Amino acid sequence: MQKKRILVIGLGSMGFGIAESLLRAGHTVFGADINRDQVDALCTKGAQTVEKLGTDKADILVSVVLNAEQTETVLYGAPDFAARLTDGGTIISCATIPPETAKRMEAEAHARGLQYLDAPISGGSVRAAEGKLSVMASGTDAAFAGAQPALDATAETVHNLGPAAGAGSAMKAVNQLLAGVHIAAMGEALAFGMTQDLTVERMIDVISVSAGSSWMFENRAPHIRDADYTPRSSVNIWPKDLGIVAEIASSAGLEIPITQTALTLYRDAANAGLGLQDDAAIIKPYAASVGLKLPGEAGE
Amino acid sequence: MQKKRILVIGLGSMGFGIAESLLRAGHTVFGADINRDQVDALCTKGAQTVEKLGTDKADILVSVVLNAEQTETVLYGAPDFAARLTDGGTIISCATIPPETAKRMEAEAHARGLQYLDAPISGGSVRAAEGKLSVMASGTDAAFAGAQPALDATAETVHNLGPAAGAGSAMKAVNQLLAGVHIAAMGEALAFGMTQDLTVERMIDVISVSAGSSWMFENRAPHIRDADYTPRSSVNIWPKDLGIVAEIASSAGLEIPITQTALTLYRDAANAGLGLQDDAAIIKPYAASVGLKLPGEAGE
Repeated sequence: MQKKRILVIGLGSMGFGIAESLLRAGHTVFGADINRDQVDALCTKGAQTVEKLGTDKADILVSVVLNAEQTETVLYGAPDFAARLTDGGTIISCATIPPETAKRMEAEAHARGLQYLDAPISGGSVRAAEGKLSVMASGTDAAFAGAQPALDATAETVHNLGPAAGAGSAMKAVNQLLAGVHIAAMGEALAFGMTQDLTVERMIDVISVSAGSSWMFENRAPHIRDADYTPRSSVNIWPKDLGIVAEIASSAGLEIPITQTALTLYRDAANAGLGLQDDAAIIKPYAASVGLKLPGEAGE
Repeated sequence: MQKKRILVIGLGSMGFGIAESLLRAGHTVFGADINRDQVDALCTKGAQTVEKLGTDKADILVSVVLNAEQTETVLYGAPDFAARLTDGGTIISCATIPPETAKRMEAEAHARGLQYLDAPISGGSVRAAEGKLSVMASGTDAAFAGAQPALDATAETVHNLGPAAGAGSAMKAVNQLLAGVHIAAMGEALAFGMTQDLTVERMIDVISVSAGSSWMFENRAPHIRDADYTPRSSVNIWPKDLGIVAEIASSAGLEIPITQTALTLYRDAANAGLGLQDDAAIIKPYAASVGLKLPGEAGE
């Protein structure tokens, strides 16, 4: 395997895990984050700071920052990390962003003689660190070829969605629409069942093997059963991601009333102080509204 | 195995399949339905009409009519089919009904010296005919014991939800809440993705193996891809079933905004003439609202 010099921009839990997977595969990794502690932590694993790149150029840039605005800024704004890439180098953009933004950033990459892979990721931080992400990717053949060494090290599944940026971000938006709605529906359904004296545990047993199941139900409902709201994925993700979905739908003139309803629930939950909890906490306002005691809460 | 005399009341696609499975297991089946053609069709398979029971008594009554009102009527109203049961005979009630109705019908059964199993079913007509239904059941030990020969012949999975009627119906309502919301979310998500130039086929490929998947997405999205709206389960099911969910939630004082939004979509779709189509047709109003051509529709 060819060893590459790879910039990883954004060392939150996903970016940090990606950087670890790249290091494990033998690549030379340069990390950057506004949180210096994250950079230092990565350096103890064998990475270097971007400053260490000096006047050399990197082969690949993996952007794992929070959103579209941050992605455009780190790539082409003041930090201009895209300028750290060698001619024909490849940008891999992992944030969930609107397809139009992805198309604009691809055009800018091409104007600079760079490749651009529209490559939103899913799977969570554990799978990032294991090199087992799922990637919804679109871009030119050259972009896929340029990204391959990094994808090989970080992804279990790469969906090739075609030759132009935008399709990857669009598919990620479809996935987030469903995932966000399914988590909120799980909260609504479990609270509903509790009003009828069903236990969360029993509902998990039955629904997980019934037509009402979803990937998110099976993954998140156990957090409620276990009263464990440690944020593997936080409530705050959803006002952001469903907000992007709503923005895209609005541009297309499509009404998405179920998604809008879920978006309102997440915004209300965040405003009620639940933003940093695991997104399974979306059940809490339902339970509170009718005085239900969730697992782990003191009895009446 | 003990051969029983079993009444099957309601010979729609589910009841007919149940009756076939009971016949295959060697039971003596007496069928009734307001649609005489269904009764005649069942008799060609080896069943008899309820009239043939004469003054004899049956051991088990399986009620597979449409809703709570019909169930109460056939059991205890003018037809009084419950009176056709032997002392200590068992009623198995399969319709999706409010838990309160199940409790009331159980009480009436006990007052008559009968057993009552609150036993909503899921799985669809094909699995009914194969004897592979999933049953969400609650009732006394005596009710389960009395129902066992019929359950053995018709169900692959029986969830025992406790010793009193109501829990089975409550669990079914939780399942229907999720299933109904997930189908509508699937329609919303696929239409959304189509506005971004993603094909239904590609979305099925990717979402089915991603965190946005649900049992209903995997089951229903292919109907849209194949432009096949033959009703395995029709749009009309959902104003009924989500209406029951909304009624239960209202009694409990719980707001269920996601379910209410889905319920409105199904009512609107039914009012727009889609009621008898497969419930995957919930995508059609979305597509029409922005001029999308679904698979199988003439190009622009």
